Amino acid sequence: MAEEAVDVSNKQIILKHYVSGFPIESDFEIRTTPIRLKVPEGIPNAILVKNLYISCDPYMRNRMSEMEGSYVDSLVPGSPITGFGVVKVLDSTHPDMKKDEFFWGFTGWEEYSLITSTQSLFKIQHTQVPLSYYTGILGMPGITAYAGFYEICSPKKGEKVFISAASGAVGQLVGQFAKLLGCYVVGSAGTKEKVDLLKDKFGFDEAFNYKEEDNLNAALKRYFPDGIDIYFENVGGKMLDAVLPNMRLRGRVSVCGMISQYNLEKTEGVHNLFFLVSKRIRMEGFLVLDHYHLYPKFLEMILPHIKEGKVEYVEDIVEGLENAPAALIGLFTGRNVGKQVVVISHE
Amino acid sequence: MAEEAVDVSNKQIILKHYVSGFPIESDFEIRTTPIRLKVPEGIPNAILVKNLYISCDPYMRNRMSEMEGSYVDSLVPGSPITGFGVVKVLDSTHPDMKKDEFFWGFTGWEEYSLITSTQSLFKIQHTQVPLSYYTGILGMPGITAYAGFYEICSPKKGEKVFISAASGAVGQLVGQFAKLLGCYVVGSAGTKEKVDLLKDKFGFDEAFNYKEEDNLNAALKRYFPDGIDIYFENVGGKMLDAVLPNMRLRGRVSVCGMISQYNLEKTEGVHNLFFLVSKRIRMEGFLVLDHYHLYPKFLEMILPHIKEGKVEYVEDIVEGLENAPAALIGLFTGRNVGKQVVVISHE
Repeated sequence: MAEEAVDVSNKQIILKHYVSGFPIESDFEIRTTPIRLKVPEGIPNAILVKNLYISCDPYMRNRMSEMEGSYVDSLVPGSPITGFGVVKVLDSTHPDMKKDEFFWGFTGWEEYSLITSTQSLFKIQHTQVPLSYYTGILGMPGITAYAGFYEICSPKKGEKVFISAASGAVGQLVGQFAKLLGCYVVGSAGTKEKVDLLKDKFGFDEAFNYKEEDNLNAALKRYFPDGIDIYFENVGGKMLDAVLPNMRLRGRVSVCGMISQYNLEKTEGVHNLFFLVSKRIRMEGFLVLDHYHLYPKFLEMILPHIKEGKVEYVEDIVEGLENAPAALIGLFTGRNVGKQVVVISHE
Repeated sequence: MAEEAVDVSNKQIILKHYVSGFPIESDFEIRTTPIRLKVPEGIPNAILVKNLYISCDPYMRNRMSEMEGSYVDSLVPGSPITGFGVVKVLDSTHPDMKKDEFFWGFTGWEEYSLITSTQSLFKIQHTQVPLSYYTGILGMPGITAYAGFYEICSPKKGEKVFISAASGAVGQLVGQFAKLLGCYVVGSAGTKEKVDLLKDKFGFDEAFNYKEEDNLNAALKRYFPDGIDIYFENVGGKMLDAVLPNMRLRGRVSVCGMISQYNLEKTEGVHNLFFLVSKRIRMEGFLVLDHYHLYPKFLEMILPHIKEGKVEYVEDIVEGLENAPAALIGLFTGRNVGKQVVVISHE
């Protein structure tokens, strides 16, 4: 016998309009609408979910602007924000997705979502770890770090690795992967707290606060007197310009993101690209969406590492959907320490 | 019986001082010194050569500035300029280099040179072609084009290829290699004469004069409505910035040089590097000196093509060593049409 459908109120975070420059809280609004906790009649292969954790990720800034032909769809002003999250199935018309199962993938910034495009969702099989990990180390940022380091950087034991935005969701993992491989690893971040975290918690060999360096080139020379083999690029702009002259012959730059540039009306120009020639550097951009097939292999590697404490993970957890806009904005001012997660409901 | 040593006068082109900005003729001077046409006593493995053809190449601009730890040594103010050329051996103490043999490789901008570092010289075995070809299509620029296209671009039949400075020594060959492979090929150059050459002589599908385009982005969209798979980069700066948004997914940028930037006090900033991420572009610099081992394979491929007229080659030949400085300077104003060669002596 079918359960009675329940009508509840659904709190949502709406993007009011496209944003230029730094996003501010008034670019968002909270709306409450009713929702029936059941997949409507006649919609096959859909699920109605409760959103538990949502993820604040730098790539979301690009989606707040109107972009044509981009690699991700722009957000829709007037509609709830979409992004990665961890969900619990309340009702399903999908043969492979059952009530009370957990999934991670694309969902809405709201308490409940009807998901009709379920192909991007991954079923959560391992629940001995906090479910929030599936917005980070065991989710999109985890595969990003794994693919971006192992597939794009061609790393070898003993190489010198530099990571910018190193305490973020991706950076902290890349640094630990590089250490596990036997590399010398240095990270940059924007506060003393993050720098301490890099050295004390994540086991980086060295770390520095880029905001306290008048001369990034000199800072890099201090930590890499013989140069950098691998630069894992998360920030772009001035940092990239400082890194290029400090690269070693046949160095590799894996371009994951350029967060320092996303809120600028005009991006900073990069002047030192001729070093690509003189040092025979390979610089390669990548997107995680090309690498999801590696997820099972990645899980097999990372789960034992987490269990044995060989890989550490730091989350910055904010409670409450209503605090999600400030959490997202905080990514771009560096407020978060570790992976930024928002809890909508603990279950 | 040993031949009598002959003393002659040796005209030389001297770099007077390091150059900043555009080089001008007064940065050079002509000097005449005596030379004995014999390897001096006690110097083993050396040759005394007559310089026949010398090569003007863009990379030489970087050598006119004082640079530390660069991939090439700076020129030495007060000394003759050095560069690639075709030489005839007049005297030798090297067991494998005989009188009257021809070589190409590093020599001086002077009538006669004593070469003690002979390891960079290649013996010229095929003399059915003009010897000047060994400063270009059969010399350093030839291997540059071959390695830069086949090794760095990972080209496939049917791909869309764009080449800047396309009528130059390297560009004209890359375009023809791409056509031989079955690619769609477009080149840019700086005069109508060069544009006509690209289309009529080298068989490019299309070509345009970048100086006549107000909007490089629009020009690229006109010729590549579906985007560029491969960009063979010779110029840098604004052109690179216009190309990046027009690249296709998983496109490749082979960075051979950035001639538009070499004379600037501060290089132009490149703003569109985030497209490396969104389009998963690989951008890779290279230097020919890593690829000389391919020379025999390259010769085997190119010589029949030249003989059968499948590959065309255009040189801009200037007569007389005294005209070499103007020829070199002309590279940076785009005066040359095709490979810039200077004849010191026809034999």
